[in-house]
This record gives sequence, structure tokens and C-alpha cells, in this order.
Amino acid sequence: MLIVMRDHATAEEIDHVVALLHEAGAEAHLSRGEVKTVIGVIGDREVMYSLELEGLPGVEQVIRVLKPYKLVSRDFQREDTVVEVGSATIGGGSFAVIAGPCSVESEDQVLATAKAVKAAGATILRGGAFKPRTSPYAFQGLGVDGLRLLREAADEVGLPMVTEVLDIRDAETVAEYADMLQVGARNMQNFMMLDELGRFRKPILLKRGLSATIEEVLSAAEYVLKGGNRDVVLCERGIRTFETYTRNTLDLAAVAALKSLTHLPVVVDPSHATGRRELVAPMSRAALAAGADGIMVEVHIDPEHAKCDGPQSLTPDGFEALMRELRPLASLVGARVGQEA
Amino acid sequence: MLIVMRDHATAEEIDHVVALLHEAGAEAHLSRGEVKTVIGVIGDREVMYSLELEGLPGVEQVIRVLKPYKLVSRDFQREDTVVEVGSATIGGGSFAVIAGPCSVESEDQVLATAKAVKAAGATILRGGAFKPRTSPYAFQGLGVDGLRLLREAADEVGLPMVTEVLDIRDAETVAEYADMLQVGARNMQNFMMLDELGRFRKPILLKRGLSATIEEVLSAAEYVLKGGNRDVVLCERGIRTFETYTRNTLDLAAVAALKSLTHLPVVVDPSHATGRRELVAPMSRAALAAGADGIMVEVHIDPEHAKCDGPQSLTPDGFEALMRELRPLASLVGARVGQEA
Amino acid sequence: MLIVMRDHATAEEIDHVVALLHEAGAEAHLSRGEVKTVIGVIGDREVMYSLELEGLPGVEQVIRVLKPYKLVSRDFQREDTVVEVGSATIGGGSFAVIAGPCSVESEDQVLATAKAVKAAGATILRGGAFKPRTSPYAFQGLGVDGLRLLREAADEVGLPMVTEVLDIRDAETVAEYADMLQVGARNMQNFMMLDELGRFRKPILLKRGLSATIEEVLSAAEYVLKGGNRDVVLCERGIRTFETYTRNTLDLAAVAALKSLTHLPVVVDPSHATGRRELVAPMSRAALAAGADGIMVEVHIDPEHAKCDGPQSLTPDGFEALMRELRPLASLVGARVGQEA
Amino acid sequence: MLIVMRDHATAEEIDHVVALLHEAGAEAHLSRGEVKTVIGVIGDREVMYSLELEGLPGVEQVIRVLKPYKLVSRDFQREDTVVEVGSATIGGGSFAVIAGPCSVESEDQVLATAKAVKAAGATILRGGAFKPRTSPYAFQGLGVDGLRLLREAADEVGLPMVTEVLDIRDAETVAEYADMLQVGARNMQNFMMLDELGRFRKPILLKRGLSATIEEVLSAAEYVLKGGNRDVVLCERGIRTFETYTRNTLDLAAVAALKSLTHLPVVVDPSHATGRRELVAPMSRAALAAGADGIMVEVHIDPEHAKCDGPQSLTPDGFEALMRELRPLASLVGARVGQEA
Repeated sequence: MLIVMRDHATAEEIDHVVALLHEAGAEAHLSRGEVKTVIGVIGDREVMYSLELEGLPGVEQVIRVLKPYKLVSRDFQREDTVVEVGSATIGGGSFAVIAGPCSVESEDQVLATAKAVKAAGATILRGGAFKPRTSPYAFQGLGVDGLRLLREAADEVGLPMVTEVLDIRDAETVAEYADMLQVGARNMQNFMMLDELGRFRKPILLKRGLSATIEEVLSAAEYVLKGGNRDVVLCERGIRTFETYTRNTLDLAAVAALKSLTHLPVVVDPSHATGRRELVAPMSRAALAAGADGIMVEVHIDPEHAKCDGPQSLTPDGFEALMRELRPLASLVGARVGQEA
Repeated sequence: MLIVMRDHATAEEIDHVVALLHEAGAEAHLSRGEVKTVIGVIGDREVMYSLELEGLPGVEQVIRVLKPYKLVSRDFQREDTVVEVGSATIGGGSFAVIAGPCSVESEDQVLATAKAVKAAGATILRGGAFKPRTSPYAFQGLGVDGLRLLREAADEVGLPMVTEVLDIRDAETVAEYADMLQVGARNMQNFMMLDELGRFRKPILLKRGLSATIEEVLSAAEYVLKGGNRDVVLCERGIRTFETYTRNTLDLAAVAALKSLTHLPVVVDPSHATGRRELVAPMSRAALAAGADGIMVEVHIDPEHAKCDGPQSLTPDGFEALMRELRPLASLVGARVGQEA
Repeated sequence: MLIVMRDHATAEEIDHVVALLHEAGAEAHLSRGEVKTVIGVIGDREVMYSLELEGLPGVEQVIRVLKPYKLVSRDFQREDTVVEVGSATIGGGSFAVIAGPCSVESEDQVLATAKAVKAAGATILRGGAFKPRTSPYAFQGLGVDGLRLLREAADEVGLPMVTEVLDIRDAETVAEYADMLQVGARNMQNFMMLDELGRFRKPILLKRGLSATIEEVLSAAEYVLKGGNRDVVLCERGIRTFETYTRNTLDLAAVAALKSLTHLPVVVDPSHATGRRELVAPMSRAALAAGADGIMVEVHIDPEHAKCDGPQSLTPDGFEALMRELRPLASLVGARVGQEA
Repeated sequence: MLIVMRDHATAEEIDHVVALLHEAGAEAHLSRGEVKTVIGVIGDREVMYSLELEGLPGVEQVIRVLKPYKLVSRDFQREDTVVEVGSATIGGGSFAVIAGPCSVESEDQVLATAKAVKAAGATILRGGAFKPRTSPYAFQGLGVDGLRLLREAADEVGLPMVTEVLDIRDAETVAEYADMLQVGARNMQNFMMLDELGRFRKPILLKRGLSATIEEVLSAAEYVLKGGNRDVVLCERGIRTFETYTRNTLDLAAVAALKSLTHLPVVVDPSHATGRRELVAPMSRAALAAGADGIMVEVHIDPEHAKCDGPQSLTPDGFEALMRELRPLASLVGARVGQEA
């Protein structure tokens, strides 16, 4: 930690900061320039993140050099974490394709979609049983019935399945049905849920919050790993910016950045990021080219009648065309797409 | 709902949209310009928010004219909702002052702070027992012990008390201790929690999410009212923007806007919004001048040793000075501050 | 400047950075922790802002402790700069009220508006002769004819006048007519214009860019002061965020922050910030309460027929009502409004 | 244009809006629902963008259905515009590679860099002679000497050259030296400059502003086309968001969106977008995969001693490696990279 003092901070102000540091068990090293004094602080992560010295008399800026996370860092583990979800692999050169409907609406719909995405080469089935909706007047999902239909469809076509835990009280139930548990963007900083999921022995798909920084994504994942669950896959799904043409702004540079900062796999959700069907294929290609370990896309057999996110859902034909584009691209960047793994 | 078709959309495309509308039980009215056709749709809110016609062939834009909320709207109820929290009143000309430590750290700390804020004129005691922290290595709060200490301090000084429900599973427990339940910014779109709190008979303090629009704040409150709990107070606490000098960007225009859009009271949290002690007083004055129904400020008897948010906490002296500034300002804008209510 | 090395950076990497620093004439002080080495650098502002060491092998982060500005800083000049614009004063306890139409449309319109704002207590007349418009199909202003009409109206009612320099080639011409030259938000980082205006002997009204940080606003002002012109007034006019209900997000905390960081006066433009007439009065009151040195508001005698920004323009009656609200508020915060100065 | 009236707007309010529309020469069509009346307006683009009816009594929302641009639209011209810059081609399947130093520093530096980028397959040389810098204490470029050195280097290696027009007064001079004129992000809404460049007969490289929406980018380009210059290439270079790990947030979905909305070519600048050398290659690959018509990258023979943007500049070796990656990717997506055109 570095503490930058204001120009011409007094000796009393500097001594006071140093005394507080010593009191907390940290070491302080002074470096005095003409106008500025900088205090270098040595101590452990817990101390650094419990001391809050901003706002003390004479203090201009406090810079934390130690990151708020450790276990998720490339400095802690150099080699890629590879996550197994049933028969599917995410990371380590396996480009995962997670596909399925936004929400489960009926047995026919989910089964037909599961068959279509399996046939086209998806490796994991996705679908929503509990749906977070901005308006209480929108469709909220089928709940446990949805979980059951998803499980049956997944078993029927032979794919592992991921679905969202919307309410921490449902985590056990969801885990009975799903092979992978999704934490939605709105729950990325639901720290109680992250803590809880750290105790599960199922892989976690952690979506980036709408306004979460890269550092916050990694800190959220740290909660899960600290709880004992090391199988976390991060998912970039767009951040909220001033641009309204797309639903969110897909931050593909964050994918490349995350790949250098953490050993965890990173996948991309171009459907929620853009909110527009015609942008899903180009953003899927771009995600692969940027180094992502997979994509998660919405596919619906009849998008016009979808109860949720129809405008961004691919048709089975559109999904199949996308898969045909991705395979040769993947081999160029040294990855294997979908069932070829 | 208005559906704007692309330039020179074909008759088939237009007919297809109209057919889908009829199928959903909505009426369609066509208005044809030289290059554009616009379809006006008449139907109820549930239908409007379940139809997702964006992305259909020929559709350029879909505009929802009906808001995603109803009960919270000024159109639904013209007169101000006034919320009673124990002995305190929020709204209807009563400017509430909610004050206390960011987190409860010890019996002495919370009691001394409670006495100080009561003496200076606060109307509600605040404090955190469960703390949401970005890093798992930061102090997470005292939990139920913190709730008990808060309750004891509140009773000792004779103030009602508000504290955050961080985990939906703790809601009942928190409600046993607190007079008002706070939903934090990171839980503003935790729709399961909003649903649940709609069943409580305690007032709710709903903080705006870091990247929530005004419409989303109102939709979140709608969940609580729809559940049967009409005592909701909104809280503007800064949104996330590119500016990093302040912790967040306090959006005071949103306060004035909310006051015109909803009958619910609106308070402002200048402590979390700015993250800087020296900005708390000017932003409190500005909030009052903008028409807010109260403020929520962090006060700590010893900010330098605070385990959380020390840099933005006022000292008891600073808080007393602020209260002296606010009283004459309030009378100018027709409001009563604190205990004078 | 502080250079934070990556965990376990090698001796060669550290030596290489130190060598580059010495080459540039700066001093380097090493501070070695268990895992981190931090290099403190001492040298002057020019050297610090010409060295770009980010991205060197082993370098994790470079922190510039010296600000990119000097002359505008409170550290450089403690006492408030007070700017005189003809008969009007901005700063030092004088709360300026700059009012007038968005754009000059006709002799009658500008004269009638000038009379109205003068009668209600405005201290400076504003108006646009050259208008920056997003679409080339929107009204672009009357140009030099507009300047002349503004000057005549200002003289007729006895007010100083401010108007925007949209094109650097027009600066001399604008300066012949105006008492104060405005740099619009879109030109805040038009560094050639800032350089040029540094040579003028007319006060400058510098509006914050739509996505400019507080540090960038101050750096832009530094260009003008460095050029020799010390009469700069900053103007907060809203920043661009994800919120669309208001045109921009008025950042009143930035006003209080600027007042502590710089000796220059700071005014607020609630009209452009909100884009909504009904929010202009509450945000004007809030600006005054937050410590601003003035406001700039759009007033139009017939907003419904305004060629520009009608929706956010006050009527003369609305403006007069606002002035009546501001005077008692001002005396509470120790300021004098408008003509009382 | 659609005018949505508030719930239960009065007949007087509706009549008043209709009267204003008729006065302006537009047609009004009423569509009355149970609670809402919507007024459809038919008229031309100039009328629509001069009428500002927001804020009128009873008006809730005004929606402009006609875009603020026309000539740049795919609706106006279906086939791709292909821009020739000397020997180079941008668009129509030719993937342009614009490379060179951030700023021209010396004859040796620019010539050595020009040779290196030419050898590796760049099609256009870039370099800055006039540099926009946030701080007046940073290096501002060599000016006309820089232009001359760039021209000489370009001629020596046989590449066309693009450089920025920072000051509208220098446009003629820059045009004497350069084959393509760049409008920087900070000048994207310098409408006087756009107007002026519309009169030139040199291709324009128009960079997206830091906080410009897709619609604003297109409107800015419309200024140039309206002035008579149809050779405009758009450049996505990152937008400003809350994320600080990268310098800006590269918005690749905007590239795919622009390709569908306009016939103009779109290139990507991954160097300025990310500010980090290690992200330039993955974002270049992603840009190509997303459908961009080219990239613009910074290359420096000695990034450690670069006077500007060293941290984001590729070395010649890094650039050559990138070119080797791009060629096979391009053939997969049906494009030709660099000199193969």
C-alpha cells in the first residue's frame, strides 16, 4: 500500500499516519520528495483491506498495491484451470458452446431446442427456470417445473446442463437438477450467495455484473474459491454504458485481460450483451478470436413466440450456421469447438 | 406500444406483426407515412411486457408507452406517501435524518454514536450488521450480534433503527430487531428479496443500484408494493460513471425527477455517493434544496479507527455542524428537519 | 511518480526501469517488500508526463503523484479567483446568474428575453450565435448577425454578454462582440482553441466535456492559464452516463470537489444538464446549496417556438420565480445573488 | 415522429400540439387508447429536427422515427462504399492495415518504422504531427516538420499516409502532405471542422468520440457527406466507461452494428482503445472476425523511448507476428489483408 501525502503535509500529519500503521501491525517506509512525501506500507492483505486511511489529515491518495484477490490470480496459479461439466470441458483449448432457450416454456420447446443445439454441436444445454425480470409484470419462469424439464431434455439428448440460481434458498434444489450453477449478472455481488456456492461441489458459471469492473469480477470469484470451490468459469456479458443501440456494451478486451490476470476459463454471452440477433454471430466469432474459452448463446425454436429475449435468440438454423463458421476459426487459434473435444 | 417498421417494410412483414399482435389479444392501428409505417398497439401492461417483437422481419424499433410500473406512479396516486418509522416520519414535509456508523463494531462505539446523533437531531439510527464487501478479505460485520447492539443503542437513546437485509434468509431475523429494512444497492434487482419484503409489514428503504436507471428503481419498488407493502422509501446513493474522484456520481436530478414520477419519499445518501467526508455537507445541503425527503449519513465517533468507510464518515462534531446548516435551509423550502417534526 | 513492479519482478527488470529514469534525469528510490518492489521517482512535472513506463517488462502500474496541472490548483493559489465580466462578478461570494436564450433567433426575441432576465435579476446575458448541433439538418444559428443582435440587446438593457466560440477562426470576431467567451462541452479538449484563448484578455467560460473527468477539466483550464489568461470560470453541465431520463447527469459533487481543488469559480448549467424545464429550478437551488458561484440558465419568451432547446428553457415567469427562491437561499450560504452584488 | 401524450392528457393539450404541428407544416394523425393518446407526425427531416415539443403541457415523450442522418445510411445506398487511399483500398473485402508511430519524433524513427510496417504488410502509414494531449506539460508533436518527415518516409517506402488534422486552420497544410485526413476522437463533434472537410477531395478517417453514440458517429459522418465528400471511413477506438483497467472500452458490437446501418467502411484502433500492448493482437483478431474493414495500430521501433503512447505500441516484431495471424483469419472471413489487395 502506498500513501501519498498532500503537498507540504506537516510532520504531525505524517507521524499520525505512521502511528496508525504501526498500531495495525504494518511497517511504514517514508520517501520524501521536494513537495511530496510518500509512505510505503508493508503488511498482509487482510491488514491492507481493513485500514482505511483516505480522508486523514494530510492524506491525498491511498493506493493498494496488493490486489483484493489471491486464489484466482495467475500469480497464484500459472497453468489454466480446466473445468469439467459432465461430459463437457471448458478451457485448456476446449471452446465450450453453451446453448439453449432464454427460459423454459414447455416440454416440447425445451426438448426440441435441446435436440437442435445438440445436433449442431453444442456441448452444454442452457435454459432459465427462474427468470430475473425488471418488471414484475413480465414472465418469471416455470420454477422447479422448469428445472425438471431442462433435466429431462438434457438427459434425453445427452448434454450436461447449466441453469441460474436466482434465490440462494433454491441453491440445493437447483443443484439436484443442474450440472453447473449460474450466478446471474445481478447476483455477481450477492456475497452471501457466492459464499454459499463456495461450499458446493458443482462448477459455477459467474456472470459479470452490469457495472462490475474486472477487479470486482475477480474478487467475486475469489469468494467462491475461498469457500473451497475451484471450478469457476467467468462470463463476460456486456456492461452498461451510455450506448443504447445495443442492450449492453460487450467488453471483449476484458476477456483478453481476464485471460492474462486469472487462470480461470472465460466465456462470452453475445446474446445478452447485444440484445440483437444479427450481432450474435459476429460477436461469437470475435469472442473466439479474442481468446475466449467458449460462448453462451440463446437459441429458440420459435423466437417470435419466445416469452423472453426472443429478439436476441438464434433460430436452430442460425445456430447451425454459426457453428459451421466457428470450427475453422477455432482450429486457426488452436482451439477445439464443441463436441470435437 | 408503438412498433416502428423499417423504411419500405413489405406488406407481408406488416401483416405478420399485426397477426402476432392479434394472437396475443392486442389491438393494432396502422399509421402509414411516405417511407415509414408505425403500428400503434392497444392492450394491457401484462401483454405489452410479454410481447417481444424487436428483431422481427421489418421491425426497426419497439417503444413501450406504458411504464413497467403502476402502483408507485404519481398517475396512480397523486398525494405523497408519508412513511412512519417508529417515532420518525419520512415525507410530506418531514425531512428525515438517518445517521449512524457504517458498521457496528462494538457496544461502546454504537452507543456513543447513537447518543451523538440523537443529541444533534437525527431521527433514525442506522448501522450495518451484515456488510457487503467487494473483497472477501475485508471486514464483513458482526452479524446478529450487531443487530442486537444496534437495537439496544436505539432503545437506549429512543430512536427507531434501520439496517440492511443482506441475505434473504436473514430477513425475519433482521425484522425482529429493526424498525425499517434496508435493501442495499447490490440487491436492488434481487427480485426474490423484493418479492419477499413485499409481504413484510415494516417500511423498506430501497437503495438505487449502481447502474440502475430511474425506471428500474421504480420497477424494483413496484415489486414491493405489488407484494402488499406500500411503505417504501427510495434512496439515491450515486451511480457508477467514468468519474473516479468521487466513489460514485450523486444524481440529484434523479431525486427531483423521482419526486415528480412517484408518490414515494426519496432520501439521499451523500456518504456512499461521494466517498469523501468533505463532500457530505455540501451534498446534504444540495439534496435538501433539490427536494429530497431526507438524508442518510455515516457518523463515527472515531473515523480513523472505523472498520468500514472511515474516509466518508462524519465525526459527531461534523454532523452537529451539518444539522445546524440544514435547519434554516429546510424552513426556506418548507420542510422540517429531524426531531422538530 | 510511483512505479509498482509485478510480484517477483527480476533484478534485471528493476534495473532497466531505474536506468531509463536516470537517462531522463529523474531520481529513483527503491522500496522492496516481500513480493513487491515499488520505485519512487523524483523529478519535475514535464519529465513525469513525458515518461511512459507502463508496459515495460516487470512493470505493473505507474502512478503519477504530481497532477497534470499546476496554475489552476489551490496548492498554487489559496485565495479564490474572482472574475469580472463587465459589470458582473463571478466568485468570491457573488453568485452570478447568466441567463438568456439557447440561440438568437430574431431581434425581437433576444431583446425581449434580455429585458425579462435583466428585470428578474440576471447579471449576464447569454445566447448562442453559432450552435453546435448533432444533426446537420438542425438549426445552426444566425452567425455574426446573431452576435450583433446579442450585443445590441446586452447594451440596451445594460448587461455584459457571453457567447460561444464554436470555431477557433471566429474567436477574434466573437471577442469583438462578447464580454466573455464560452468554450462549449464539445470543445473542452480542443487544445488548439484553449491555447489560442490563453492569449486573449477576455474571461473564458469553460464548460466540462460530456465525458471529461474532474482532472481533465482542470488540465483544460491549465492550458488557458498557461497561455496567460487567468480569468477562467468552470461550468459543470452534466456528464454522459447510462441514465436517459435526463439529457445528462448533473454532477454536483464535482462542483464541491472543484471548489476544493481549484481557486477558479465554478458555475452550473442546469438547463443542458437535465434537458427538462421542471428540473431547472430544483437543480439551481441545489447548485447554490452545493457552493457553486453561479448558474447559467436558458430562458425564452416563447419556448414552444424556440428553434433550439425549447423543452429545457424557462419562461420569463419561471425565471423570475426561480430568482425569488434563490435570493434567501443565497443569504443563508453567505452569497449575494445577481444584481445585489 | 411520434408524440406520446401523458395519461389522460386534456383535449386542449392535444389540440395545442396539433396546432403547433400544423403551423410547422407537418401532418398529425391521432391514435387514442384508453389512457394514452399518441400523435403520429408526418413531415420531412428538417421539420422533425427543428420542432422541439418535449416539455409542452401534456407531452410525455417525443420519438423521432426518422434518423438524424440520411446520406450515410444503408437505406440510402445499399452497396458498400469502397475508399481508395493512394494505392490502398479500404472496404469491399480489402482489410486495411494502417500502422505507424503515435507521434513523429525524428527522421530516423519515422523512416525505420515505415520500413518495418511496410515490410510486414501494412497498407497505409500513420503518424501524428500535431498531438492532442490532456496535459499542457506533455509532448505536443513536431507540427509541420512532422508532416514533412511523414511524407518523406511514406514516399520512401511507397505507402499512402494518414495523419490528424488537429486544428481546422491547418487543414489545407495537412492536406498538402497527407493522402487521408484523420479527425480525432476529441474533434468528432467539431462540426465546423466536419463541414470544412466536406469540401476537401481527400478521404477522411473519422474516429468515434469518447462518449459518442453510434447515432452520433453517423450524424458526424453525415456532415462530411453533406458537404460533398463521400470518402469517409469510420473508426471505432473505444468509448469511455467505468472500467479503468483498459484505457477505454472497445465496442466491437458497434462495428458490426455500423456495418449494417451504413455503407461506409469501418476500421478499429485497438491501440488507443485498450492502451495496453498485450491486448492489441487479440483485439485486432477480434475486429477482423467481427467484420471490420481494417485496423489502425501503433508501432514504434523503440517503445520504451516513445514520447507518446509507448505502453500501447507494438514493436516491429510484434507487428509482424500480428500480420502473420491476421492473413489466414482474413481468408476465412472472405477478406484480403494488407498488400495482397
